[in-house]
Amino acid sequence: MSTVDPRLSINQATIKYADLATALRVTADAGVQSIGLWREPVNEVGLDTATKMLADSGLRFSSHCRGGFFTLPAGLERDAALGDNRRAIDETAALADAGADGSTAVLVLVAGGLPEGSRDLIGARERVRDALGELVPYAQGAGVTLAIEPLHPMFGSDRCVVSTLGQALDLASDFDAATVGAAVDTFHIWWDPQVYEQIARAGREGRIATYQVCDWATPLPADVLLSRHYMGDGVIDFASLTRAVIETGYDRDIEVEIFNQQIWDTDPADVVARTAAAFAETVAPHLP
Amino acid sequence: MSTVDPRLSINQATIKYADLATALRVTADAGVQSIGLWREPVNEVGLDTATKMLADSGLRFSSHCRGGFFTLPAGLERDAALGDNRRAIDETAALADAGADGSTAVLVLVAGGLPEGSRDLIGARERVRDALGELVPYAQGAGVTLAIEPLHPMFGSDRCVVSTLGQALDLASDFDAATVGAAVDTFHIWWDPQVYEQIARAGREGRIATYQVCDWATPLPADVLLSRHYMGDGVIDFASLTRAVIETGYDRDIEVEIFNQQIWDTDPADVVARTAAAFAETVAPHLP
Repeated sequence: MSTVDPRLSINQATIKYADLATALRVTADAGVQSIGLWREPVNEVGLDTATKMLADSGLRFSSHCRGGFFTLPAGLERDAALGDNRRAIDETAALADAGADGSTAVLVLVAGGLPEGSRDLIGARERVRDALGELVPYAQGAGVTLAIEPLHPMFGSDRCVVSTLGQALDLASDFDAATVGAAVDTFHIWWDPQVYEQIARAGREGRIATYQVCDWATPLPADVLLSRHYMGDGVIDFASLTRAVIETGYDRDIEVEIFNQQIWDTDPADVVARTAAAFAETVAPHLP
Repeated sequence: MSTVDPRLSINQATIKYADLATALRVTADAGVQSIGLWREPVNEVGLDTATKMLADSGLRFSSHCRGGFFTLPAGLERDAALGDNRRAIDETAALADAGADGSTAVLVLVAGGLPEGSRDLIGARERVRDALGELVPYAQGAGVTLAIEPLHPMFGSDRCVVSTLGQALDLASDFDAATVGAAVDTFHIWWDPQVYEQIARAGREGRIATYQVCDWATPLPADVLLSRHYMGDGVIDFASLTRAVIETGYDRDIEVEIFNQQIWDTDPADVVARTAAAFAETVAPHLP
């Protein structure tokens, strides 16, 4: 257990097929202190039960995944999405309350892709800004930070029209930094020629809501969504990226979030152990 | 024939399985006035024969593909790559001489990916700059423009460490604009939140060496290299991108370059006809 870094947090997507009870158990049993949750497994047991289970686990809560899907034009579907985001904000606040000391009320937002048949990328991006504007007062009231997550540009049309950290920070800049920040996820931003200057800027502006790590490797699998790897199994330089994040003063948990069919097909306790080892080797040496 | 825009150029990769003779014939027969060539089919017949064939076709020559592969550390392999680039420069100059009036001596450069086992993205990018420095005097002597092509970030580790137009322009900025420019390819840059400002900058700096078009659609195929589509079959807004390029004063040929297995498996004459129709519908309306 002594090799498990205290700042490591297991994002539940890394052990996707584990239900909430299993995810909490294998994470705590491995000596990991923190977990990031996803809405589906939380809602499977209901929020009240989930908060009790989280409290009983003794784990910190580092983030909730995920809200967003903001690119729809005005209408019922968009209204429903905004309502669902308010519920996600409530869940985030409740889970952060239930988690151990040092928990953070961070809701990760994935903006959404182009609406079916649309080529209006600029319009879609403006609707993201509008949706943030509608949610911010509610998030502020709940004490929740919305973390805009830029996704790799290969997801730019179908999943997320926010493609760079700089763009996420531009979107966030209309709002208070305590309520709107950005998710800094190595997988999505490692390639960006501006990545170091934008991480420094995010720090200066107080906008690093969460730092998430996993690796990039090629060839990409047939489903590119599942192309995330254990740190060290790809090409990302975790030394320089982690140091850049730490230099901004970021002092909270660091999540490992991996979508990978082979990893999902592995026993979750083994996955958590392997994740902790990879973290100890690639990220922990660059922490203060 | 009246529907074929005079500025359309067929990049030979769009009809990959056609040899040089076939590519020239189907392009000219369709009433297309210009072609972009690839090194392999040119070298299959030899440069002298290729220049004669091109001259006989009456077509303009719009670009040569491709040089680059600049990210190797110092050594024999890098020296060989630089030597090969000098041959590509010679080919480009000869082909531009042989093409009809209005031909342009443009060599498209794909920088190359991270060397095997390396995570040093910054170092790889610096080696691209160094390699350009070594080739520029030779290109200048030959009257050839090197077009740095930013590739979509999904190719950032294995094919091209130059991922944005802004980064390509930063690399180019050390050199004379007549000798080093950038390739503006819609497929690679459509997602970039800075795309319009960087196209305008490229124009101001005299660096748009070639404008290439094709479309982006999802889901991506298993081999993401082959995910290019006819214009109109995806999500790219050719109206705004083409107008942005034209507003800079760009007045040369516009190439269609599509890597797509299904298109490659189609009769090349049909592909050229379909390409001309897609160009007439999506790009030509935005030309002066």
